[in-house]
Amino acid sequence: MKWKTKITKVEPNHLLTKGYRQEDLIGNIPFSHVVYMLLKNELPTEEYGHMMDAILTACIDHGVTPPTAMASRIVASGGVPLPTAVAAGILSIGDAHGGAIEKGAKFLQDGISRMKKEGKNIDKIAEVLVKEAVSQKKRILGFGHRIHTSDPRTKKLFILADELKVSKEHIALSMAIEKELEKQTGKKLPINVDGAIAAITSDMGFDWRLGKAFFLIGRVAGLTAHVYEEQTEFKPMRQMFTVDVEYIGASEKDLP
Amino acid sequence: MKWKTKITKVEPNHLLTKGYRQEDLIGNIPFSHVVYMLLKNELPTEEYGHMMDAILTACIDHGVTPPTAMASRIVASGGVPLPTAVAAGILSIGDAHGGAIEKGAKFLQDGISRMKKEGKNIDKIAEVLVKEAVSQKKRILGFGHRIHTSDPRTKKLFILADELKVSKEHIALSMAIEKELEKQTGKKLPINVDGAIAAITSDMGFDWRLGKAFFLIGRVAGLTAHVYEEQTEFKPMRQMFTVDVEYIGASEKDLP
Amino acid sequence: MKWKTKITKVEPNHLLTKGYRQEDLIGNIPFSHVVYMLLKNELPTEEYGHMMDAILTACIDHGVTPPTAMASRIVASGGVPLPTAVAAGILSIGDAHGGAIEKGAKFLQDGISRMKKEGKNIDKIAEVLVKEAVSQKKRILGFGHRIHTSDPRTKKLFILADELKVSKEHIALSMAIEKELEKQTGKKLPINVDGAIAAITSDMGFDWRLGKAFFLIGRVAGLTAHVYEEQTEFKPMRQMFTVDVEYIGASEKDLP
Amino acid sequence: MKWKTKITKVEPNHLLTKGYRQEDLIGNIPFSHVVYMLLKNELPTEEYGHMMDAILTACIDHGVTPPTAMASRIVASGGVPLPTAVAAGILSIGDAHGGAIEKGAKFLQDGISRMKKEGKNIDKIAEVLVKEAVSQKKRILGFGHRIHTSDPRTKKLFILADELKVSKEHIALSMAIEKELEKQTGKKLPINVDGAIAAITSDMGFDWRLGKAFFLIGRVAGLTAHVYEEQTEFKPMRQMFTVDVEYIGASEKDLP
Repeated sequence: MKWKTKITKVEPNHLLTKGYRQEDLIGNIPFSHVVYMLLKNELPTEEYGHMMDAILTACIDHGVTPPTAMASRIVASGGVPLPTAVAAGILSIGDAHGGAIEKGAKFLQDGISRMKKEGKNIDKIAEVLVKEAVSQKKRILGFGHRIHTSDPRTKKLFILADELKVSKEHIALSMAIEKELEKQTGKKLPINVDGAIAAITSDMGFDWRLGKAFFLIGRVAGLTAHVYEEQTEFKPMRQMFTVDVEYIGASEKDLP
Repeated sequence: MKWKTKITKVEPNHLLTKGYRQEDLIGNIPFSHVVYMLLKNELPTEEYGHMMDAILTACIDHGVTPPTAMASRIVASGGVPLPTAVAAGILSIGDAHGGAIEKGAKFLQDGISRMKKEGKNIDKIAEVLVKEAVSQKKRILGFGHRIHTSDPRTKKLFILADELKVSKEHIALSMAIEKELEKQTGKKLPINVDGAIAAITSDMGFDWRLGKAFFLIGRVAGLTAHVYEEQTEFKPMRQMFTVDVEYIGASEKDLP
Repeated sequence: MKWKTKITKVEPNHLLTKGYRQEDLIGNIPFSHVVYMLLKNELPTEEYGHMMDAILTACIDHGVTPPTAMASRIVASGGVPLPTAVAAGILSIGDAHGGAIEKGAKFLQDGISRMKKEGKNIDKIAEVLVKEAVSQKKRILGFGHRIHTSDPRTKKLFILADELKVSKEHIALSMAIEKELEKQTGKKLPINVDGAIAAITSDMGFDWRLGKAFFLIGRVAGLTAHVYEEQTEFKPMRQMFTVDVEYIGASEKDLP
Repeated sequence: MKWKTKITKVEPNHLLTKGYRQEDLIGNIPFSHVVYMLLKNELPTEEYGHMMDAILTACIDHGVTPPTAMASRIVASGGVPLPTAVAAGILSIGDAHGGAIEKGAKFLQDGISRMKKEGKNIDKIAEVLVKEAVSQKKRILGFGHRIHTSDPRTKKLFILADELKVSKEHIALSMAIEKELEKQTGKKLPINVDGAIAAITSDMGFDWRLGKAFFLIGRVAGLTAHVYEEQTEFKPMRQMFTVDVEYIGASEKDLP
């Protein structure tokens, strides 16, 4: 039984990752480009590497309230090592938190495949996809945000995608869906940062199964800062927030 | 009760991290420099940013056998989401795995403080520290490696630290300790990659409490690649390794 | 904004869980019956409590090789606190490890609903379900085991289910499926311990969404013992197993 | 290389845990007694088993606000599997949350050792220990509670410890410390539930390193109920609490 891996070859004084000697990568290839290579097997062009770098930065932090930051800080307040607390935040990355990147990318990638198979154009497939979603009352993930109506991260990522010539049909589909959503529902549901990353990484050729990975790798930096701030600026077990709890369970009773 | 934070300000369509608008950081400041800023409050100089980037890359991966990679892959094989499996690997970063960066940095930082207080020079304090460790049979962390006698990552990091003018007294102390260890014990115990990162980040002015953070933020990229490889190339619950187990507990018996 | 909960009411010197004062539960109601109550809102009858107790014990441990135990021990060997290492094992409980309880219970519960709707009997619905699975090449979860052909835990749980009058239509369906599988495929695929727990908890009226919960709550005891053994009997970062790794990635090359 | 374990022997159709066939344990030995055996190698007497059962129940739940419950519920709200969310809660069990059991037990066990070595009695050693703590401004863990002045769980556990003849010198020392604390500081700092469990498990002969284990094994039941309630009664990513955040970091600025 051999365990085959394509990631890293480890020999005494000799470390190859994706074929490159680690001492060649260190200091010569930007870390964000190495991240790209780890997920895509080859080093990026300058443009694609730049885009990946921007995506990671777009994920670093959104303050203390997202589940990632709250989980990390609460766990840190229990008095545990920094990595344990950072990991707790990562655990909260799921279908409802960061999951729109994964599901959004799958939706766009499936949409483009179907467009080609059915011989449609971008506008037509967008119209069909939105119509189907509306009639089935399904939400298309990656549109709308709880706080931002015009997310500065989204805008910047799309500008870069254009400048760096990354932009292709998945971004186009994403924008066509945004328009169709307004047309068919009357509501403005702008592409959010998850949706933007879904579209851009799809245009870069990434597997949608990696959707949560970009968010995770970028966000881990912010989570580390949160845990460090919690450990150095606050007392353990402090009260972080106000919870107005109402017990609505069984009323007080004796054992049977 | 106000919760005060210095990390990110979140307002509708407006995100400030350490004072900078996120849309300004995205695509303009390399991700690794943003990581530096998150842990050190200010943007690095070009040289310090370059050094931080090299450190993160030096941590990306060491194949399938370290606890980080094994824990992530085993958990992935249980059939869980990617972030859950990546987090499991991060949980294994502890006193014995990555911990030499934290403890090594503390040792060097305490050593330099003491050197100044006692009016010694680098060679003298190194001699004293090693003598104390040897007589107390304590291991100085960050020296020696299970596999590598001349770790290519260590060499490259020190070359960069010189070139980028990062190198100061903590690196000097680290090298003096290496020499003293050979002199006093007769054994070659070269500085390992943990020890190198401990020395370099100490020279960069980082708190030793962040020792595990550099490793964590770099390694999360490799762990993501491992989980993705496990999920896409292997079957769930596969047998990954050979374990030769011997049960040496109580022998078979009836209930009392 | 009120947060409503049915679990525990917390007031100074007064703790109610599911309506009962905690000081009444402590020492008067067996822990396993309290577990039942937490998941099912009411205290069990003596028989149902006894059955729940048996299920938890049936999950305690399966040696060092399952993902749960391996993940916990590997993470422990990184030098982390006991709860961090135990949690790592729990993370591996997923669709492929313990997941057969959840999916198996859903399959049986759906099967019984359909049986009633279609006016069939147990044998008939079993025949149909197996036929469909075989023709669609889908595995019915909860049947067959890597190691055991006649799992002593399964046998004991079913004997107890009979003795305690817990046994109803889901267990009957489970046994009918076992027979049909052999009839239609020619292979013996005995109900495994996951399948037994799926059938029994379904007969007890538990939501299939709790499938992994029984396994988790029982197994946490074994994981704690594993972490304690690792921390007290072994050195950190020890080599636990033999891995025969073959790097099949890109061959060594220079940077472009 | 053999991996030796004393926990479970796994052979086809044959599972021995601590020497007992699992089919003998299942349904015959209460789960809480099996927990005792896993941590202490032998089955308990009826009295010790009863005491262990009471301790586990005393740990089940303390509502939605402790770090354990909050972390589990926040992570659940990210849309992840039940075990992932339960594990997140366990991660928060650290030096400041549940840690008083571990440290309190060590303090009591060290105190009794010292008492014997120095030929003192309980009252005398309590006086000395409290004097030392007061003069060094160190907190003795296991005394005082944020909410309860007379914790119903503590009272019940001590009553049971007496009735079940578990009570010995560690409980006596604990009570003597409570008195001394009031005498020397003028403040009432009643033994809390952590302190009670520390004293009782010490009298039962448990290693203080297992201090967090009792809390963990009991609390996992409550955490499972919290995650299930979150997943079935609430929407993902709901707002759980009010946080009044004030950003006190660097003020808005342009990139350099």
